[in-house]
Amino acid sequence: MTELKAAEGNSDLESLIGYNLKRAYVIVQEDFRKTLGEGGLSPRSFAALSLVISSPKITQSALARALGVERSGMVAIIDDLQHRELLERAGVPGDKRAQALLPTANGKRIYKAALAAVAKHEEKLFGVFNNEEQALLVDLLRRFREARGNGVEN
Amino acid sequence: MTELKAAEGNSDLESLIGYNLKRAYVIVQEDFRKTLGEGGLSPRSFAALSLVISSPKITQSALARALGVERSGMVAIIDDLQHRELLERAGVPGDKRAQALLPTANGKRIYKAALAAVAKHEEKLFGVFNNEEQALLVDLLRRFREARGNGVEN
Repeated sequence: MTELKAAEGNSDLESLIGYNLKRAYVIVQEDFRKTLGEGGLSPRSFAALSLVISSPKITQSALARALGVERSGMVAIIDDLQHRELLERAGVPGDKRAQALLPTANGKRIYKAALAAVAKHEEKLFGVFNNEEQALLVDLLRRFREARGNGVEN
Repeated sequence: MTELKAAEGNSDLESLIGYNLKRAYVIVQEDFRKTLGEGGLSPRSFAALSLVISSPKITQSALARALGVERSGMVAIIDDLQHRELLERAGVPGDKRAQALLPTANGKRIYKAALAAVAKHEEKLFGVFNNEEQALLVDLLRRFREARGNGVEN
């Protein structure tokens, strides 16, 4: 056992579910960024673009709620996606303040390629689990979210 | 089904394990911060203090590796904990550049109270699962980390 593992093993952290969730997610996030490369979509931008494609004309505030991201953080993500010409803002008839989001043709193309890469990244990373275990993990995580609400990221 | 749920349900995100991990962790993190209150320990500071208490004299770089945090981020966390007088930096005999970390009496007291609050927070949040499911979730997350390495948070 290494010095590090010994240090972790003796602390209270390893028995905390939250700590284990966080550590697992850090591994996924790191590999996600490596997979999409420098200048590629971040996990958040990828998620935002995915929802804009599946729900064209979604408003910025509905997108923020759906993703569990604070409004201010959402604006930065949308600005970046618009700057990269992956989506466009359009007016909402009858609501001058709201803005509806639409993917560009380029946005759809980039997303499709990113999704294929992300699918491979998940297949590789979670290959440590068999199909049943993967389904079980997703089921537990979804049930947790359904019971506990969306949460908002700072 | 609400507009939001419909938007999410139609996207590719819900089937991605990484996305589900992230969303679950955001819920935990938000509740953790609420539990320890304004000015209380953040999840990262809590984890760092926990390891310094379980492994007194751990060096800053060993702590960074154990927690999967970048060195620069680690320095900020340690500075904050030292500023709050929860830990102290001490010299390492034979290595002028290294610094060993020691909890203060106050640090141990604050940690003990925080740990009790965090245990209640986990009990409440994860009460949606029975004991067997909780153990299963932790087991899956740990196996993932053991297979995939520590990961480093940006």
